[in-house]
Amino acid sequence: MLISCVAYENGRKLADIEPGDIHRYLVKPGSFVWVALLEPDARALELMQAEFNLHPLAVEDARHGHQRPKIEEYGDLLFAVLHMVEPADGELRVGEVAIFVGRNYILSVRSGAEKGFQDVRARAEQEPELLSRGPGYVLYALMDAVVDRYFPLLDALETELERIEEQIFAEVSPRANIEALYALKQRLMVFRHAVSPLLESLGDISGARVPLVCAGMREYFRDVSDHLQRLDQTIESIRETVSTAISVNLSMINLQENATMKRLAAYAALIAVPTMIVGIYGMNFEYMPELRWRYGYALVLGIMAAIDGYIFYRLRRSGWL
Amino acid sequence: MLISCVAYENGRKLADIEPGDIHRYLVKPGSFVWVALLEPDARALELMQAEFNLHPLAVEDARHGHQRPKIEEYGDLLFAVLHMVEPADGELRVGEVAIFVGRNYILSVRSGAEKGFQDVRARAEQEPELLSRGPGYVLYALMDAVVDRYFPLLDALETELERIEEQIFAEVSPRANIEALYALKQRLMVFRHAVSPLLESLGDISGARVPLVCAGMREYFRDVSDHLQRLDQTIESIRETVSTAISVNLSMINLQENATMKRLAAYAALIAVPTMIVGIYGMNFEYMPELRWRYGYALVLGIMAAIDGYIFYRLRRSGWL
Amino acid sequence: MLISCVAYENGRKLADIEPGDIHRYLVKPGSFVWVALLEPDARALELMQAEFNLHPLAVEDARHGHQRPKIEEYGDLLFAVLHMVEPADGELRVGEVAIFVGRNYILSVRSGAEKGFQDVRARAEQEPELLSRGPGYVLYALMDAVVDRYFPLLDALETELERIEEQIFAEVSPRANIEALYALKQRLMVFRHAVSPLLESLGDISGARVPLVCAGMREYFRDVSDHLQRLDQTIESIRETVSTAISVNLSMINLQENATMKRLAAYAALIAVPTMIVGIYGMNFEYMPELRWRYGYALVLGIMAAIDGYIFYRLRRSGWL
Amino acid sequence: MLISCVAYENGRKLADIEPGDIHRYLVKPGSFVWVALLEPDARALELMQAEFNLHPLAVEDARHGHQRPKIEEYGDLLFAVLHMVEPADGELRVGEVAIFVGRNYILSVRSGAEKGFQDVRARAEQEPELLSRGPGYVLYALMDAVVDRYFPLLDALETELERIEEQIFAEVSPRANIEALYALKQRLMVFRHAVSPLLESLGDISGARVPLVCAGMREYFRDVSDHLQRLDQTIESIRETVSTAISVNLSMINLQENATMKRLAAYAALIAVPTMIVGIYGMNFEYMPELRWRYGYALVLGIMAAIDGYIFYRLRRSGWL
Amino acid sequence: MLISCVAYENGRKLADIEPGDIHRYLVKPGSFVWVALLEPDARALELMQAEFNLHPLAVEDARHGHQRPKIEEYGDLLFAVLHMVEPADGELRVGEVAIFVGRNYILSVRSGAEKGFQDVRARAEQEPELLSRGPGYVLYALMDAVVDRYFPLLDALETELERIEEQIFAEVSPRANIEALYALKQRLMVFRHAVSPLLESLGDISGARVPLVCAGMREYFRDVSDHLQRLDQTIESIRETVSTAISVNLSMINLQENATMKRLAAYAALIAVPTMIVGIYGMNFEYMPELRWRYGYALVLGIMAAIDGYIFYRLRRSGWL
Repeated sequence: MLISCVAYENGRKLADIEPGDIHRYLVKPGSFVWVALLEPDARALELMQAEFNLHPLAVEDARHGHQRPKIEEYGDLLFAVLHMVEPADGELRVGEVAIFVGRNYILSVRSGAEKGFQDVRARAEQEPELLSRGPGYVLYALMDAVVDRYFPLLDALETELERIEEQIFAEVSPRANIEALYALKQRLMVFRHAVSPLLESLGDISGARVPLVCAGMREYFRDVSDHLQRLDQTIESIRETVSTAISVNLSMINLQENATMKRLAAYAALIAVPTMIVGIYGMNFEYMPELRWRYGYALVLGIMAAIDGYIFYRLRRSGWL
Repeated sequence: MLISCVAYENGRKLADIEPGDIHRYLVKPGSFVWVALLEPDARALELMQAEFNLHPLAVEDARHGHQRPKIEEYGDLLFAVLHMVEPADGELRVGEVAIFVGRNYILSVRSGAEKGFQDVRARAEQEPELLSRGPGYVLYALMDAVVDRYFPLLDALETELERIEEQIFAEVSPRANIEALYALKQRLMVFRHAVSPLLESLGDISGARVPLVCAGMREYFRDVSDHLQRLDQTIESIRETVSTAISVNLSMINLQENATMKRLAAYAALIAVPTMIVGIYGMNFEYMPELRWRYGYALVLGIMAAIDGYIFYRLRRSGWL
Repeated sequence: MLISCVAYENGRKLADIEPGDIHRYLVKPGSFVWVALLEPDARALELMQAEFNLHPLAVEDARHGHQRPKIEEYGDLLFAVLHMVEPADGELRVGEVAIFVGRNYILSVRSGAEKGFQDVRARAEQEPELLSRGPGYVLYALMDAVVDRYFPLLDALETELERIEEQIFAEVSPRANIEALYALKQRLMVFRHAVSPLLESLGDISGARVPLVCAGMREYFRDVSDHLQRLDQTIESIRETVSTAISVNLSMINLQENATMKRLAAYAALIAVPTMIVGIYGMNFEYMPELRWRYGYALVLGIMAAIDGYIFYRLRRSGWL
Repeated sequence: MLISCVAYENGRKLADIEPGDIHRYLVKPGSFVWVALLEPDARALELMQAEFNLHPLAVEDARHGHQRPKIEEYGDLLFAVLHMVEPADGELRVGEVAIFVGRNYILSVRSGAEKGFQDVRARAEQEPELLSRGPGYVLYALMDAVVDRYFPLLDALETELERIEEQIFAEVSPRANIEALYALKQRLMVFRHAVSPLLESLGDISGARVPLVCAGMREYFRDVSDHLQRLDQTIESIRETVSTAISVNLSMINLQENATMKRLAAYAALIAVPTMIVGIYGMNFEYMPELRWRYGYALVLGIMAAIDGYIFYRLRRSGWL
Repeated sequence: MLISCVAYENGRKLADIEPGDIHRYLVKPGSFVWVALLEPDARALELMQAEFNLHPLAVEDARHGHQRPKIEEYGDLLFAVLHMVEPADGELRVGEVAIFVGRNYILSVRSGAEKGFQDVRARAEQEPELLSRGPGYVLYALMDAVVDRYFPLLDALETELERIEEQIFAEVSPRANIEALYALKQRLMVFRHAVSPLLESLGDISGARVPLVCAGMREYFRDVSDHLQRLDQTIESIRETVSTAISVNLSMINLQENATMKRLAAYAALIAVPTMIVGIYGMNFEYMPELRWRYGYALVLGIMAAIDGYIFYRLRRSGWL
């Protein structure tokens, strides 16, 4: 589906154009074309391939999807794939955007993600002096938008982790904690797969040798790289904390087991001692003087109560009960 | 066993030729020979060594098998070894294909794997403009085929892992889960041994200095490298998840132990308390007025039932039963 | 908030100047301006950006805060972000200082941290021969101050760790130990996030290619780097020790469980054996000669006491009691 | 002890010579001397040092032994130390061979290992065209022999690991498994210490800059390196599997504990319930009609048997028994 | 405290000189001065700084101590810090030696360590041909001495580890084992902090670009580096083994718990079964024919003994007792 197809000249919008007319604008000096597609069919991609003369391997990647985030050069063409992460019913949905950038065009192919880049285009059109830098700047703006959307989602994971930590130390439901930690780790991996390959690839455009379309944009891409490094560090932190939390939770489970066993032992003692005593007076010896005492029965009951009272006091004091 | 031996000229099949005639075609400009062997005997390999003038160390590697995946240069000769992974009775069988690539020939020696490369050859023959690039392209096509066959197998491992995860949290048979996780990890290692050395070696042909036979094919080999990186990332993910799952399973085992102990304690309490009470009335004191009551017996039975009812209610509410 | 704004010439203080006059001093040869801001509002930062002609991306980073520690070059401008760690109610508070360094100016923007750099300025003004080296030296002095303030805080963590270790082996409250270790690890991460990205970035200014403003200061920045490496090593040590301590604590919990079970078993034995014996003499057989003995009852009580005494002695000796 | 001292010319054996005559042969063009020593005394080493003009630090290393595997250059001299691993009474014995290689000589000093290199020499003498390449080839042949001898030993470790794995899942003697895994890991470290430093060192002679004595042998040393990488990968695999097996074994221990506790609970239930019932009829109430029934006793026994039968059936079905 | 201050010429001792006269000898060609200080006060260090014209940052490091091991260049000055590890009351004491090396002087500043370098000086003076190489050789000799002193201490740790291993598998006091392993790991870290930063730094003087004062000494420093690598490998081995030992110990604790539980269950069974039986004959049914048998009592006692005998036999055979 075609979202928009616009020609720009010196940073200002020239016109909405027809995809079939793109090649006419590509020859105009100082202008470039910015096309946005959403889950295009094969025919639409072929048209773009023809108009922009895209490399077949890059087009194939965009068609098949399920790529790792990456930035590749095919001659003059820069081809980038980014993961778009969106919350969906408590889960994380991973979409993709494939971006083709040439000297005077930029084409984004989005799929599996709901939120588009209309806001990026709007903001860019309000800053013609930046937009006049051409497709390289648009690439930066798109990457910056994708990466900035990771932050609130990762913050949510951190908050969730803090919630679980509290549960662990409150010794509430270790079973639920472990499930929550496991789920958290799975969601964390979604971010790791989105962030770390991209960070690696970005080294190539913000590093020593910069592709032509990004010339003069080094600081901008380093800024994206910097954001990614922050995300990467947060991911690593959460990951390490989750590991620790899992083993701490195991310790808590063992502690609870220990506590259970102590209570079991305590209650057993409270019952077993009187049972033994009543057994004594259930013996059938002929000469057991106590049996004939007037208050023998009451005395024994009293003694048993006293002993249990004492045991109870001792166990309570030592924390077994 | 000779599978096929074909001479190509400008990307088109010239003729099926006899192995002994290979050297005649090697001198023709613009043509190359593509030979496929399956578990050849020593004689067949010697013939090929003579026809193509192969390096003895490379031939020895192909003969002995059990190599790591690798890509090596012997002067003009490029020698590659790939692992072919195939499912066999629920296990994974690892075969090998050794590929010798020269300026105008390519020789593949397959062993221990059932599925061949007939489909690769058929597809290549339908695209003469690509096949006309020569042995370098065939090498790419073979590698691409081998690597693409890893994906469904690794997907199956991921599905299996998800199945085990569900079992873990459903607390079904932790023993079976642990065996399944262990087996999964073993199978995962098969892939790791297939993927990661190859990925490393590929850096050499898709990187800075490209061997002659791969000249102009850089994007294609980078594409294979990209697929391998995706596989590698998936392998790492599964591996980490398996580790976490093993420790989560251990926690679940401890939780079950805890639950068992609680039930044990609960049932013990339900029985021990009445046992103590009946012991009391088994005592032989002369003055125990209750013993003479008309409904003493019924009363005691009732009291015991009431106490057990109360204990049962409390334990059920606190989740011990 | 403006803390101070001073112009220096040949290492000596020239005058406190107005922010709006800064550009006048920037043209004087041999002099430089040192400005310190505390949590400035947007307007104050814009003024500085205009006076010093700062790069917008760097200014944006200073405004938003929550950056990783880093040192970046924007043309002639060197932009550094450092974390300032301060104790606050038993927690660690992380503030930031962003530093802009040019050929003849240095601007520090502090936020979220209480302690400033008045002491650094005072010491620098007492050593004019060093201060005459210009903004590069001031950058060093600020970094050195920030880094040196990490040491006592990290030492406190080490002391805390030693305290916990003692608790672990004294088998006091494993639950509290685990919470303390977990909290310690969280605080450790604050330092890791402060130290390791900075160490990485410092490689660029103390390494091969040195930015202009740091020319001739290589040994000084290497010294900071050296301090950071020491911190980094300490952090790694503590981290590894915390991990080990967590697993040691788990072992201690299991040992306590084992001990609990042994005591449970021991007390059960002490009670169960007499219970069985009294049961024997509670049987109603007609021919049980002992029942008629004069001292049968006393004898049985004596035997039971003897058996329990022996069991007690054995269990005590084997450490179960 | 001198094993052999032979002069070669153009790959063919010239003569067995006296150690004292070595220097005479060193000046002959196209010839080289190959000396093999076994645990030589100080005097023998000094003689060699004098004859070949060896570097004192290298000679000292050979004399002291207990070196890491390494390959070092001392000017023209290449000095290599390899570990020789041999089975000895179920343990692994680590011997060493130090090899000095110069332009026209090679000296091997073996110690602590039983098996020598007679077979290597015999095979080399049968291939004069290879031996004529000089000391570099002999170095390769020796290294290849040492490395190839690791394979069957490491295979034995893998077989042993598989045996233990079966034991673990058969739940046979977790204690023995843990000891076996521990011992396996210790033996694995022997190989790691033999393989990985050598692999590192080999990078220097098969890599970019090749020492003079190895000129033209690049493919051969890469072949050794390839074998070492295979060994290294196997070692890593075993190591990781051992770690997993240890934690799996721990889970199995916990599972057994759980099973033990369940059986304990089950048997307790089978005994406690009848004990409670017989207690009831041991009470001394005057009005307990059942006590007077003709078949009351038999009925109670029957009821107890029925209850236990039912409990047994339930516990068996739920896997507790 | 000044230990010694000696001038050498062509490798031979010229004279013991006064610190204040050092500068006179520095101008003599072919001679150098070797000064050894022990825990000097500020004044002594200042004198040295003046005499040798040392860099203030290096002097500050020597004064403050608590440095990481390192080797740094300050122009012509080479500044090294080494850790000296000495046993002290079962603990390890870490001292430091800071070494300043120039073209014609070497100054060592030792602190916190008892053992000095008199033996190094004595040996050096006996080998004038080596000592004539100047301060670079002395630096090597000092480093070699410091590093060689690590070996016996690390060997002691290995022996200690073997002792603990035996304890673990002998199942003696898991609590003591864990404390011992923990203490061992702490001591191991002392060595890691001594060895690994030094190894890293040494890469700079034995690697590609060699500082002037070490010219021609490459093989010697590589030898030190080699020793450090051996130490480093041993440290890593011990460290990994300690980790494994801790988790093995945990398994042993669980096994002991399992065994305890089995014995508890076994003894419970031995007592509970007779208790149930005697309960049967404690019932008050009127028609219980066995009660009237002449040998009923003896029979029941016999049956109970027989049952317990059988249970005991079964439990013993299955290893529960």
